[in-house]
Amino acid sequence: MFYHVKELQYHAKPEKPDPVYAKKLQEILGGQFGEISVAMQYLFQGWNTRGNGKYKDLLMDTGAEELAHIEMLATMIARLLDGAPEVDLADAAKDPVVAAILGGENPQHTIVSGLGAMPSDSMGNRWTANYIIASGNLLADFRANLNAESQGRLQAVRLYEETDDRGVKDMLSWLIARDTMHQNQWYAAMRELEEKENIVVPSTFPRELQKEEVAYTLFNYSQGNKSAKGRWANGISMDGCGMFNYVEHPVPHGDRPKLRPAPTYVHDTPLAAMRKSDDTPDPDMK
Amino acid sequence: MFYHVKELQYHAKPEKPDPVYAKKLQEILGGQFGEISVAMQYLFQGWNTRGNGKYKDLLMDTGAEELAHIEMLATMIARLLDGAPEVDLADAAKDPVVAAILGGENPQHTIVSGLGAMPSDSMGNRWTANYIIASGNLLADFRANLNAESQGRLQAVRLYEETDDRGVKDMLSWLIARDTMHQNQWYAAMRELEEKENIVVPSTFPRELQKEEVAYTLFNYSQGNKSAKGRWANGISMDGCGMFNYVEHPVPHGDRPKLRPAPTYVHDTPLAAMRKSDDTPDPDMK
Amino acid sequence: MFYHVKELQYHAKPEKPDPVYAKKLQEILGGQFGEISVAMQYLFQGWNTRGNGKYKDLLMDTGAEELAHIEMLATMIARLLDGAPEVDLADAAKDPVVAAILGGENPQHTIVSGLGAMPSDSMGNRWTANYIIASGNLLADFRANLNAESQGRLQAVRLYEETDDRGVKDMLSWLIARDTMHQNQWYAAMRELEEKENIVVPSTFPRELQKEEVAYTLFNYSQGNKSAKGRWANGISMDGCGMFNYVEHPVPHGDRPKLRPAPTYVHDTPLAAMRKSDDTPDPDMK
Amino acid sequence: MFYHVKELQYHAKPEKPDPVYAKKLQEILGGQFGEISVAMQYLFQGWNTRGNGKYKDLLMDTGAEELAHIEMLATMIARLLDGAPEVDLADAAKDPVVAAILGGENPQHTIVSGLGAMPSDSMGNRWTANYIIASGNLLADFRANLNAESQGRLQAVRLYEETDDRGVKDMLSWLIARDTMHQNQWYAAMRELEEKENIVVPSTFPRELQKEEVAYTLFNYSQGNKSAKGRWANGISMDGCGMFNYVEHPVPHGDRPKLRPAPTYVHDTPLAAMRKSDDTPDPDMK
Amino acid sequence: MFYHVKELQYHAKPEKPDPVYAKKLQEILGGQFGEISVAMQYLFQGWNTRGNGKYKDLLMDTGAEELAHIEMLATMIARLLDGAPEVDLADAAKDPVVAAILGGENPQHTIVSGLGAMPSDSMGNRWTANYIIASGNLLADFRANLNAESQGRLQAVRLYEETDDRGVKDMLSWLIARDTMHQNQWYAAMRELEEKENIVVPSTFPRELQKEEVAYTLFNYSQGNKSAKGRWANGISMDGCGMFNYVEHPVPHGDRPKLRPAPTYVHDTPLAAMRKSDDTPDPDMK
Amino acid sequence: MFYHVKELQYHAKPEKPDPVYAKKLQEILGGQFGEISVAMQYLFQGWNTRGNGKYKDLLMDTGAEELAHIEMLATMIARLLDGAPEVDLADAAKDPVVAAILGGENPQHTIVSGLGAMPSDSMGNRWTANYIIASGNLLADFRANLNAESQGRLQAVRLYEETDDRGVKDMLSWLIARDTMHQNQWYAAMRELEEKENIVVPSTFPRELQKEEVAYTLFNYSQGNKSAKGRWANGISMDGCGMFNYVEHPVPHGDRPKLRPAPTYVHDTPLAAMRKSDDTPDPDMK
Repeated sequence: MFYHVKELQYHAKPEKPDPVYAKKLQEILGGQFGEISVAMQYLFQGWNTRGNGKYKDLLMDTGAEELAHIEMLATMIARLLDGAPEVDLADAAKDPVVAAILGGENPQHTIVSGLGAMPSDSMGNRWTANYIIASGNLLADFRANLNAESQGRLQAVRLYEETDDRGVKDMLSWLIARDTMHQNQWYAAMRELEEKENIVVPSTFPRELQKEEVAYTLFNYSQGNKSAKGRWANGISMDGCGMFNYVEHPVPHGDRPKLRPAPTYVHDTPLAAMRKSDDTPDPDMK
Repeated sequence: MFYHVKELQYHAKPEKPDPVYAKKLQEILGGQFGEISVAMQYLFQGWNTRGNGKYKDLLMDTGAEELAHIEMLATMIARLLDGAPEVDLADAAKDPVVAAILGGENPQHTIVSGLGAMPSDSMGNRWTANYIIASGNLLADFRANLNAESQGRLQAVRLYEETDDRGVKDMLSWLIARDTMHQNQWYAAMRELEEKENIVVPSTFPRELQKEEVAYTLFNYSQGNKSAKGRWANGISMDGCGMFNYVEHPVPHGDRPKLRPAPTYVHDTPLAAMRKSDDTPDPDMK
Repeated sequence: MFYHVKELQYHAKPEKPDPVYAKKLQEILGGQFGEISVAMQYLFQGWNTRGNGKYKDLLMDTGAEELAHIEMLATMIARLLDGAPEVDLADAAKDPVVAAILGGENPQHTIVSGLGAMPSDSMGNRWTANYIIASGNLLADFRANLNAESQGRLQAVRLYEETDDRGVKDMLSWLIARDTMHQNQWYAAMRELEEKENIVVPSTFPRELQKEEVAYTLFNYSQGNKSAKGRWANGISMDGCGMFNYVEHPVPHGDRPKLRPAPTYVHDTPLAAMRKSDDTPDPDMK
Repeated sequence: MFYHVKELQYHAKPEKPDPVYAKKLQEILGGQFGEISVAMQYLFQGWNTRGNGKYKDLLMDTGAEELAHIEMLATMIARLLDGAPEVDLADAAKDPVVAAILGGENPQHTIVSGLGAMPSDSMGNRWTANYIIASGNLLADFRANLNAESQGRLQAVRLYEETDDRGVKDMLSWLIARDTMHQNQWYAAMRELEEKENIVVPSTFPRELQKEEVAYTLFNYSQGNKSAKGRWANGISMDGCGMFNYVEHPVPHGDRPKLRPAPTYVHDTPLAAMRKSDDTPDPDMK
Repeated sequence: MFYHVKELQYHAKPEKPDPVYAKKLQEILGGQFGEISVAMQYLFQGWNTRGNGKYKDLLMDTGAEELAHIEMLATMIARLLDGAPEVDLADAAKDPVVAAILGGENPQHTIVSGLGAMPSDSMGNRWTANYIIASGNLLADFRANLNAESQGRLQAVRLYEETDDRGVKDMLSWLIARDTMHQNQWYAAMRELEEKENIVVPSTFPRELQKEEVAYTLFNYSQGNKSAKGRWANGISMDGCGMFNYVEHPVPHGDRPKLRPAPTYVHDTPLAAMRKSDDTPDPDMK
Repeated sequence: MFYHVKELQYHAKPEKPDPVYAKKLQEILGGQFGEISVAMQYLFQGWNTRGNGKYKDLLMDTGAEELAHIEMLATMIARLLDGAPEVDLADAAKDPVVAAILGGENPQHTIVSGLGAMPSDSMGNRWTANYIIASGNLLADFRANLNAESQGRLQAVRLYEETDDRGVKDMLSWLIARDTMHQNQWYAAMRELEEKENIVVPSTFPRELQKEEVAYTLFNYSQGNKSAKGRWANGISMDGCGMFNYVEHPVPHGDRPKLRPAPTYVHDTPLAAMRKSDDTPDPDMK
């Protein structure tokens, strides 16, 4: 159950309107690695966690915080839109800034949301739960989270570079710091489980049931062998269970596949047409 | 540029048809962490990599391999569908197996693809590039890759549990082993960059520009303090740059946000209606 | 900013596992009118509301409650999945219940989420922000909310009919009651604004700028005139500003549109081919 | 069955080309509340209506009209694109209007549709049936329709504000008037059913099966109690069946949920790793 | 502008309910090549056609007919659902037919649409305008149409095979016949334009601006040379403008691409980390 | 199985950066008819082809080539982005070119991909497998392929017109030539199968099972009879099996559909409300 307080976790006030930047800032609100994604991802992971231990608590702590970040960004975007001039093509003739706004704004910020934030990214793609991950396996999911915070901080930093507004930069410097913490925390959680389970997910699948002979092999499927020099092709494997090796000229280990003629009720290309289509009989087709 | 050979990387031949399992197996072909996802993810990362060093080569090696895995799964699914009985509701009266097939098969496997594999997951959602990640920052992306191989191996293992077909299990044991390698290799690549860059992505953003005072703080936004006992709340941070700390009762650091009345041209709720809607004047609305 | 407590708003415990019902119940968690939709819709409306009056407070109160409903449903679904038998096609031969499970379960509940809830609907479509609405105009949005609670309660009631599990029914009877309140509250809010603004949204557009002559006309575009008998075709209009009227045989008020030949740089069908394609010259093409 | 006439319902001829506005106008053709949405929504509701009474007729009348509106907008957009200059970055150096066009146009209007309208919104998102609603319950659906016409008129009015083209404004004044009628008509239909069924959808669910004790309660989940002053928290409920009440400090009515350890075949985090992860034994995990 | 008549183009009455088949039949209503797709495709092509000649008329004739086909299928699906038993897992124990229904039905047909048709395919994917094509070039689009009718008839035929219901088969035999006509008509239209424009779209691009030396070459990128025996690798080209030729061992015609280091403001992997990552200096990185 | 070589199939080097054009060029990389679409389409068709004859070989040859085209475009886009100036609204005041870039660039090219190509189209829509087709029936699929190459070449030609960069034009002239070959080759393959199967897909459905009486009829559902003059309405049908005919005034061949009242468990509008809603009893409702 959730309680809301009206105050923001941190300030979200720009110095001045900037509808073009408002469009860009949508990326970290409603994009693939925006705040909606991390909020929903951590909450779903928390709800699906077994027991009530510290991992579940950590997930719920962080999920609830990310909801506050959605709120900060929604507020910032509305304020970047407030007071922006209404512009049209006739105005552009006189002023390149108007031209830039006309081209660079998100028209839905006026037409659809009435100068409010939208649950979408910087190109207007609506947020989708395709972005999130909750597998029930915490080591796998902590890696998903470490990735999410890495991509998220990277995008926030790039956005930091694209504005001179001190209010926006102030808010981003908060979010960037929180992403530093979140990378650190998921890293710690990941390492803790790796110490118990080793690094390969899932740890509970009996090793002997996989083809051990190719479990530590780098196949060179792309011309050039620079990858042969990496750590991943030399020495003991990262999980300590094998020796890395490199196959410079990989060959197929399977057959050339042959699909049987389809049953007539699916009306694929009739066998007669297929047969006649070759100058010589196809030995694969009985 | 790519060359194709007709032989499979490894065998993909089931003992017998099983259209219900064919539907399930689609998950690791066209699902969020299926083979299309990893193939496209690694190739796009490779194409966007600067220079021509070992990381690019590794990405292209592995991307090309994943294309071969799509092929193996497509072949296996077509064969699981081949020879499956055509069933309808009348038949179900006599045989629970028919009932199970009727319910559990993917009808598009007949109607749309003519007993062939589809570029979609086990619930029929078509594959989407929303699933993939290529940021230009390799440490971020190697984490995405480590996650993808962790989720992917987890799903392959779950599917291994759901069949008794020795042909299917044989193929899965190959794919599971390859996922072991790929987890190891991305882990190695991640660690290598972490040794150079430290763990926080991006490493190039000046630390002093983030709010350092909250860069190592765990805020307890979910009732209960089990998370206070974790590594992430105690001692030196994982990046070695700070001390973790825990705030049991986090308070807001920002104001209660007030959005100004909207300009008339957006036709939001008129100010008069908003004002009158409160019994007392709203001090937030000037 | 949000705080989370670990206790649920209301109990979410089924009597026994039922993976087929778990699949169905996803509809009101992650479907078009599921709890994710209403939570996100009310929160975005709240964040985009001008001022800090009672409407904003009401939106935030209700948005926060809906987050608790997501949590209840996620918990219920995980419990409906827990303890469910692992089944395959061979088992189905012996037991129609197994056949029903094999057909009726969502395979992603095992393969993807590890027996946890998913952010998707009963057919496995991932939740998308296409479902939500926040326009900045509260009268419009309260109507969206009234609709959402109407559709949502309808779906919950249909799901109530589809189970005999007393635990599930107990939880649904809570959610259904809350939907009763929410329909009442949005109805009250809608009526309050209608009393100030009249019923046509937006109220701020000058009436004289619309074509008043067709602002109260029902055009009979579908054969048969049963619709002529409705309130909407007779008497004073609902907004009190006009008289409803009915046009039995509507005629076009516009011209037959003619598009000019495309400029050559778009390489549409060349004019020569278009021209020659008619036996007689086309007077529409100069 | 449908017949088409070549004449438009109303004129759709701009004074001059304006590719930037053409991009914006796509919103009410192929957006969430564009004409495709209302056409498809009313037609599906009509086809799914039981019997052949006046409601079905009204739905089919209006659905057929909305098809004519798609046609008007498609024509208008094609004409706004016709004759627009072909521009590139070199030209922009000389003319801010060119810069505005280059930024503000939809490149697919040239590359994909050859200067024709597209079935997408102003940010290029293709139309999706996620937008539409047809539940089989007409009171619910009339509310969906009232919302759709409210959002749709609001967007048309905002677009009216964003152009000076008299031809465009003339067409919009027609569409805005029609939306006035459609809001009136769905309002009338909604009220008529409410008089028979009362306001809570569905009316056919026995009241005693819902938790009556929370069916008229406003829970204050967001700090501050401005919402306590609303009609929705005081007096008899809108449906006349209860008394509204307000709970200032809502508490949980459910337990802290505990999920059982997952069965081994799903390979979630192993119990051992979960157990050891807490310094003290977790009483929730048996 | 459109007029609707209440009668169907052809009968749509099944002998008996069959909710499993209703789910399957959704494919040709709301799937990739369902009737919504062809209706919207032909109408958008018609609205975007230049002039008012016979091609535009043909497109509007056929688009309007496809609207009638949506209506027939929506009616048929509602009737296949009407009278279907309400079933649950307990019932399945006694009856494999119930098990089949429980597994094979679309739960949204009850929960969401109230026993009505949905705008989605047989796996529940909502219809999307991603499926349709309207390029402004009629020869290209007639090929799209020929394909759509080919895929559509194929799916209708497969569905014909999957039922014994004489009412359903009767309706399908109508739709299949209409698809025969539509394949014939688009074929005729395509051939007519090919006679004027030759076969390569667009015909208006000057041949000398393409690399003529590879305009008729089959590159053998997949091992094995069976494709060398085809018409496409021998003799004069289909457009009569070149000679087909076959390259058994294709080589690259381009360089090994090198991307320059990224500017610092995008925070890609820092050059230092890239450089050090190779044992030897990378000559591609200056 | 696939092997990759680092060299490109053809050069992909622009003369100078142009981020606005980079955004546009995404269309033929990740759009509906971009290179991802054709690569995936041909590969899936190949994997689903029965036997191992020349058609399968041709599909795999071409699918592998299209992977190389993705690579060329990804490289070109990255280079068009490299060296582009970082711009903001303040800069736009001074320079219309900056204004054009600010409006016309894809912000995700900086924020998300770090100056790399994205798997999306020119409006930022991520690629989806909704775009592709693999039916198991080769004649149907060759038509899909002919269409894809027609649309693809058309889009490449339009993009050719929109740039003066000689490097870009050089690469496009290669791709345009390859599309010429691919149109020729699918045309040849289509004609070959048509000679064996005749033109109507699928050829294996017994003609007598379709309603022959409407298999060659053009129904005039759109006012005006220009379409009556076409080849499709006169003479022997294209498949040679019938005579085309034209029905100027088509009438319904089906009944007015009546849906029965819904069972109570779906809670559609209650029959009482429906009945009372008409002034006179509805004869359709028993």
